[in-house]
Amino acid sequence: MTSVQPKAQAQKAPKNAVSPTRAENYAEWYQQVVRAADMAEMSGVRGCMVIKPWGYGAWELMQWEIDRRLKETNHENCYFPIFIPISYFQREAQHVEGFAKEMAIVTHHRLRMKDGALKPDPESELEEPLIVRPTSETVIGEAMAKWIKSYRDLPLLTNQWANVVRWEMRPRILLRTAEFLWQEGHTAHETQEDAMRETRLILDMYKDFLSSHLAMPVIPGEKAPHERFPGADNSLTIEAMMQDGRALQAGTSHYLGQNFAKAIGIQFQSRTGAQEYVHTTSWAVTTRLLGALIMVHGDDDGMKMPPRVAPQQIVIAPVLREDSDKQQVVEYCERLKAELKGQMYGGQPLRVRVDARDISGADKKWEWIKKGVPLYVEIGPRDIQDNKVCLMRRDQLAQGKRFLPREEFLNLATQELGAIHAAMHEQAEAFQKSRTRTDIKTLAEFEAYFGKDEENSFGGSVGFVRAKWSGDKASLKLLDKHGVTVRCIPFDQDGKEGKCVLTGSSATVDVIFARAY
Amino acid sequence: MTSVQPKAQAQKAPKNAVSPTRAENYAEWYQQVVRAADMAEMSGVRGCMVIKPWGYGAWELMQWEIDRRLKETNHENCYFPIFIPISYFQREAQHVEGFAKEMAIVTHHRLRMKDGALKPDPESELEEPLIVRPTSETVIGEAMAKWIKSYRDLPLLTNQWANVVRWEMRPRILLRTAEFLWQEGHTAHETQEDAMRETRLILDMYKDFLSSHLAMPVIPGEKAPHERFPGADNSLTIEAMMQDGRALQAGTSHYLGQNFAKAIGIQFQSRTGAQEYVHTTSWAVTTRLLGALIMVHGDDDGMKMPPRVAPQQIVIAPVLREDSDKQQVVEYCERLKAELKGQMYGGQPLRVRVDARDISGADKKWEWIKKGVPLYVEIGPRDIQDNKVCLMRRDQLAQGKRFLPREEFLNLATQELGAIHAAMHEQAEAFQKSRTRTDIKTLAEFEAYFGKDEENSFGGSVGFVRAKWSGDKASLKLLDKHGVTVRCIPFDQDGKEGKCVLTGSSATVDVIFARAY
Repeated sequence: MTSVQPKAQAQKAPKNAVSPTRAENYAEWYQQVVRAADMAEMSGVRGCMVIKPWGYGAWELMQWEIDRRLKETNHENCYFPIFIPISYFQREAQHVEGFAKEMAIVTHHRLRMKDGALKPDPESELEEPLIVRPTSETVIGEAMAKWIKSYRDLPLLTNQWANVVRWEMRPRILLRTAEFLWQEGHTAHETQEDAMRETRLILDMYKDFLSSHLAMPVIPGEKAPHERFPGADNSLTIEAMMQDGRALQAGTSHYLGQNFAKAIGIQFQSRTGAQEYVHTTSWAVTTRLLGALIMVHGDDDGMKMPPRVAPQQIVIAPVLREDSDKQQVVEYCERLKAELKGQMYGGQPLRVRVDARDISGADKKWEWIKKGVPLYVEIGPRDIQDNKVCLMRRDQLAQGKRFLPREEFLNLATQELGAIHAAMHEQAEAFQKSRTRTDIKTLAEFEAYFGKDEENSFGGSVGFVRAKWSGDKASLKLLDKHGVTVRCIPFDQDGKEGKCVLTGSSATVDVIFARAY
Repeated sequence: MTSVQPKAQAQKAPKNAVSPTRAENYAEWYQQVVRAADMAEMSGVRGCMVIKPWGYGAWELMQWEIDRRLKETNHENCYFPIFIPISYFQREAQHVEGFAKEMAIVTHHRLRMKDGALKPDPESELEEPLIVRPTSETVIGEAMAKWIKSYRDLPLLTNQWANVVRWEMRPRILLRTAEFLWQEGHTAHETQEDAMRETRLILDMYKDFLSSHLAMPVIPGEKAPHERFPGADNSLTIEAMMQDGRALQAGTSHYLGQNFAKAIGIQFQSRTGAQEYVHTTSWAVTTRLLGALIMVHGDDDGMKMPPRVAPQQIVIAPVLREDSDKQQVVEYCERLKAELKGQMYGGQPLRVRVDARDISGADKKWEWIKKGVPLYVEIGPRDIQDNKVCLMRRDQLAQGKRFLPREEFLNLATQELGAIHAAMHEQAEAFQKSRTRTDIKTLAEFEAYFGKDEENSFGGSVGFVRAKWSGDKASLKLLDKHGVTVRCIPFDQDGKEGKCVLTGSSATVDVIFARAY
């Protein structure tokens, strides 16, 4: 079994825009791409990041599409308080157990100047400290308890776009930061069946969205019991494979049973007149998807933005030999831009920028290559004469430039974007398949596979193992020992009896094993 | 001088949907409309609110339009940390002076369970406490200092959509809460002239947006020096008049000079090669605009949503006498909705909902009246036969229902929305004019006017006074005494020498005096 490497990597000249390359040092390559693409940076505030326009622009486009899909399925946006009194948080026992570790805690509400320095005023200490929300089940549950009276109020389908804080001891930009952005959906239903249907509806939406907009194939399934969200009866997940073979949890959807309803008191009068507890769900995707985009699609020349979430899909660079050409060429480019912006792709007008900055053509081109703009167009006075444009596809750098008649380019532009999306999706899918082993059957094979730590990187061969798992305690110990986790129990199961790859005991269920972010 | 009262108020039967009425108790009326329109509610978290779908939906539409205008003028969205180290905050002396009062302060980063209760873990105390951002000049300034190197990097035009926290001792829902949502723009420029142009560009954009989307006329001008943003050299504002004659600051745009640049060290290499400090601006509008919408447009039957920010612009209610009609009537309504949604108003497809809930027709109608949906349509089996719809305009309740042929309604729908917007704008403008006195010239007249506290309400006559002001200390003391503030120095000035209405000393400048929220 060999890994699929991006073609550009195999065919390009040795000099790359990003150093180190993925093969040299994958973790450092990731940091360098975040910087080279100018998507985000760590701030001076411990563990917190600044999301810059090229990263935030992609996030806005993700928001736009997810929000559209949520509204289409009758979810309504609300906004709930960022602060959660500790007493709220303490109500659901398992929830506390899972979360009560690293959080930002507000204890005072006033500063005072003393000896030339600002300090919390001891007289302003809060009677009950407030947690900065790490997630909002409890505070939204309090609102639901007020809002829901009868089965006529159900289902209650809410969502919020918000920031959340989880104090991280080892932050990694975009993937694990003290503060991040997300949407969190919270719904309440009459029955378990309704709530499970919602949980699955959302997971399927996430899966489809990642495929259609992020060109990212994922494996959907259930979390193993020990990996569930704290307080959930069932957690569904989509797992994506990064280019170092590690898994990244890209979205989750939880069936919370009646746990939060009972802890908080969210009751309704049922169709038979009885008081019952609602069944709730919660689900989220976060700005870590921006990190996943880099780890799935980036190459040794920087980022490749999937066209549907690229803040600019086409950049047009006027190529000037002499100052006297400038006005004519820039105006020509602006007219081309205007025509392109009249076209639709993915339900939105094309996003096109004319980059007329006064810097060298090579610097400009490489800046946009590193940012991963899907299509890069250069136009000089000669091209205007010839009625042509010079086109470069970010996913086909090795194939260099193509000259196209202007009209043909206008006719082909959206089609090219579609082709880029398809090619990126195909490459990511082929990579995932090539790095997923289904032939590992014994502990010895498992240990030999995951033992090759040095190969658990871009150039290596370690990735996902799909095998039978018993779920018993002995198997969990072995996983801990090797730093491997059960990513999910995929929805597609053969249901055949077999042996647990870890303990050899009887097992029916197939799971995905991997190291993970 | 008499006040303009909404026509509906004057002509309606005495019974109103909201109690108390504006005339009976304006402050309580406001609370009741927030509730009746189901826009927001106070949460169990001290001073924090929950923004509900009907309020949040209007906020989203405001965001959509402001964001569109900001992008059109080359502003780029970013996201900056919610936490600000105290040391950042302390850098700009006046900024600290103005803000360092009531803020949420994070002092610990871990909870521990002790004696069955969660408490901040003493071992997790932060070396430097963090403030939950009340505004982001300092933390964004830190980023600007890194990003800006040369005049080529200017102007730097950033904006963020975020939550902010200012601990409020006397919260009032939507108008003054501990946490609220806003956009905050932060820009850096080469020269004072450029920065002042930006400051004014944004204020003009706000003014135009409030007029075109919120049907809200405002008075634009400069803040008096003592009312400036802490750390600003100049603060521009738009002031709106509520129906009790009080002013509400609806948006501000600040020229911060080089104050923050010098405090933080935001320098650039100028065109002449010298190191210079940038000139910065900041500007914001917040979710308090939702409160302003109610106070400007609401009446004794609840909210009136300006059509461009109404989460639903048209609600269609099937009228059913017998269950057997239901399917036919609902399908007919859905087809009408589909046709309406194919039409554009204000650059977006019409927002239409079929409300087929199984509740009484009267309850349903009054629910939507209280929410302020601009157009309410009822359709029963008889109307289908007659090929008619029964239409009600929220701003013309007293005129009751109108029957229109279905085709005529389809042709008129967007026009009706436009007419409602225009009528709401006209009414608000007439009210503002009728409650603005320009004939008050002496302290005695001033005191007699603002002394009528009982008239400073919906039915009263107190509002704005436009008069000359000297700006001296004696005048400030008199203002304090009467609880009146200088709202702004309007841009339109006659420049004539006159006498300060408060002190009688020489004064050239006209200002707006008012009580304010």
